[in-house]
Amino acid sequence: MPEQVLDDISHRRYNPLTGSWLLVSPHRTKRPWQGQQEAPSKNVLPEYDPKCYLCPGNKRAQGDSNPQYAKTFTFVNDYSAVKEQQQEYTPEVNKDDVASLLLQAQPVTGRCYVLTFSPKHDITLADMAAAEIVPVIQTWTRIYASHLSATHPLRNQADKALASIPTNPDGEVDPPKAQLRYMQIFENKGAAMGCSNPHPHCQVWTTSALPEEPGKEFAQMAQYRGEHGRHLLADYAGLEMEKQDRVVWQNEGFLVVCPWWAVWPFEVLILAKRHVRALVDLTDGERLQLAEAVQEVTRRYDNLFETSFPYSSGIHQAPLDCTEEEAETSWLHMHFYPPLLRSATVRKFLVGYELMAEPQRDITPEQAAARLRNCGGELYRKLLN
Amino acid sequence: MPEQVLDDISHRRYNPLTGSWLLVSPHRTKRPWQGQQEAPSKNVLPEYDPKCYLCPGNKRAQGDSNPQYAKTFTFVNDYSAVKEQQQEYTPEVNKDDVASLLLQAQPVTGRCYVLTFSPKHDITLADMAAAEIVPVIQTWTRIYASHLSATHPLRNQADKALASIPTNPDGEVDPPKAQLRYMQIFENKGAAMGCSNPHPHCQVWTTSALPEEPGKEFAQMAQYRGEHGRHLLADYAGLEMEKQDRVVWQNEGFLVVCPWWAVWPFEVLILAKRHVRALVDLTDGERLQLAEAVQEVTRRYDNLFETSFPYSSGIHQAPLDCTEEEAETSWLHMHFYPPLLRSATVRKFLVGYELMAEPQRDITPEQAAARLRNCGGELYRKLLN
Ligand SMILES: O=P(O)(O)O[C@H]1O[C@H](CO)[C@@H](O)[C@H](O)[C@H]1O
Ligand SMILES: O=P(O)(O)O[C@H]1O[C@H](CO)[C@@H](O)[C@H](O)[C@H]1O
Repeated sequence: MPEQVLDDISHRRYNPLTGSWLLVSPHRTKRPWQGQQEAPSKNVLPEYDPKCYLCPGNKRAQGDSNPQYAKTFTFVNDYSAVKEQQQEYTPEVNKDDVASLLLQAQPVTGRCYVLTFSPKHDITLADMAAAEIVPVIQTWTRIYASHLSATHPLRNQADKALASIPTNPDGEVDPPKAQLRYMQIFENKGAAMGCSNPHPHCQVWTTSALPEEPGKEFAQMAQYRGEHGRHLLADYAGLEMEKQDRVVWQNEGFLVVCPWWAVWPFEVLILAKRHVRALVDLTDGERLQLAEAVQEVTRRYDNLFETSFPYSSGIHQAPLDCTEEEAETSWLHMHFYPPLLRSATVRKFLVGYELMAEPQRDITPEQAAARLRNCGGELYRKLLN
Repeated sequence: MPEQVLDDISHRRYNPLTGSWLLVSPHRTKRPWQGQQEAPSKNVLPEYDPKCYLCPGNKRAQGDSNPQYAKTFTFVNDYSAVKEQQQEYTPEVNKDDVASLLLQAQPVTGRCYVLTFSPKHDITLADMAAAEIVPVIQTWTRIYASHLSATHPLRNQADKALASIPTNPDGEVDPPKAQLRYMQIFENKGAAMGCSNPHPHCQVWTTSALPEEPGKEFAQMAQYRGEHGRHLLADYAGLEMEKQDRVVWQNEGFLVVCPWWAVWPFEVLILAKRHVRALVDLTDGERLQLAEAVQEVTRRYDNLFETSFPYSSGIHQAPLDCTEEEAETSWLHMHFYPPLLRSATVRKFLVGYELMAEPQRDITPEQAAARLRNCGGELYRKLLN
């Protein structure tokens, strides 16, 4: 244990990945909670729901029908946040004009996908074995590979991945004609995280612009590499493996930690141990190892409060279109941001102070990691049956 | 109307106050909503609740009793996120050591207050007349003034404010001995924004560190001033008064706009029109004008969906301890971040894409401003009675 005193005093921690600080108030967990409670999740879903727009064979909003898919299924979101075609917009920029400085806009095009994890309506990643999660990771890898630019530094790896991963018999997606810049794979799980359909799925938003968060991370990782000649996340993974107190779980290829700078109570980071720039760098063995890591995280989450644990997760990796330098700077990792704090129904709110001043957390990441280390074992729901 | 095409296409907008971008997808409001709905707020609160720890005369968690206060009442939070006294912590910093780079922490001390707006348990700012909100602004001003450093560039203004604003007969707070750096005044209103007690109140967190958000704003405002010799928010206020399409309301001293870079659906910014560096710069007349602005915002919010509208709000102004340069750079403003999007029960979730990639909004700030312009008039609840 390093800085034992931090268990007990208010302090700020620095997030080197984004270059920002957060406030940690360990003693604050003692306050009573009188505010909003989440509705406990009722596990009474059918395996097939005729009204679900993600279940096999069902009709979707715009009239298309889903195939009778066996594993995963990917389609273009019927209500995409970005589109491939839209009216042209070229902002007039006049350097001396106040409006050019203060009312800046840029057009964004792209395509959004929905990607189901399983034909079964009533399961989650936590219920799936690692071997069943492998097809999800294969689908992520194929969709990423197929959207990479023709001249991408990882084009060879992408072609190899496309050749070695079986094509999805239930359909593959053709990338849009215009080359896009970044692909954000993310999952919103649970009503508390804005998920509008419990059918296990994630989303893939692909845009012509590099979004803020990965942009900040690239800048920080590039600066660290420039200054120290090493990868920030390589150094960080090494440090955490040595210290142990924030490690939740690990296998040969991946490390699961509650990061030093975690904002959400049980925030977790899955880190590649070797320099994996993007999904297409993974070997067959590593795809299984990543599936195991995702399984461990989601099962431990559910076990923690014996509930279907809500979270948002997302994968950060090399942009779809980038320089050699940017690809080299990238380091595959996956964030999990879960809101629950004390029980299945009491969450942490990131509100007034957090929005106006800076993020604030109550329990320390070390305490969170210790609790997550201790809730491995069989998924609690399986033991109830 | 400037860039009419932005009403219809996906685009990013730049926030010059924080230096970051967000994604705007105006067409996305068309998607149906099947996810979580907020519980509609039941307006069945008593004027006095014997179990509320903020009502006059009641006992609080640690045994103290509230006075029979008449207007506002301020006390130190029984569960403060920061404390005045705590164990010393001096991080060991060794520039070549990876842990010094990647596990950075700094101690934070400070004091947190709770500040009630009214003795009545069952009202909100929207129910109060501007003249009744003036004592709230007076209390904010006195608490800010009493915490300013002895050598602060605004010390004179602070002393004048303390001399001209009547002291609170229900008690005043003595500042802590150690000089603190920043005071964040904020309100979490409504269960959806993590508020655990409906009694109208805000919080005041005062810390030894300058938090992230005001820190980013100062850096951006200082850079703008350096480059253009003018204040960013002066230029911005001027521009919005000229354009009109994001203006919700204004009086002589204050402008209420849905800012160009708003993230939350009905986000609002109250801006001082002249260079007000902090609350202590306000004249008597301006305190009433600010009260009017707060009244207009909160009443319009409630009228919009005929519900008690949840939000987090916060005031940004000069630090408690700062240089002449920092005080000059400061420009008093107040942010309102409300989550509701379509109705009293359907909110916008800032989750997966927003957390992993960048903030995303559906309706444009211009559409939001038009709707808020149109819901002035009497508070809907008064018309129901
Ligand atoms: O202090 P309260 O009202 O109990 O708590 C609320 O506001 C705080 C400051 O924004 C947050 O840290 C808490 O998560 C929230 O529930
Ligand atoms: O696309 P969905 O699942 O309907 O919507 C959900 O995720 C999106 C991406 O994080 C958010 O913008 C929405 O606010 C949220 O409700």
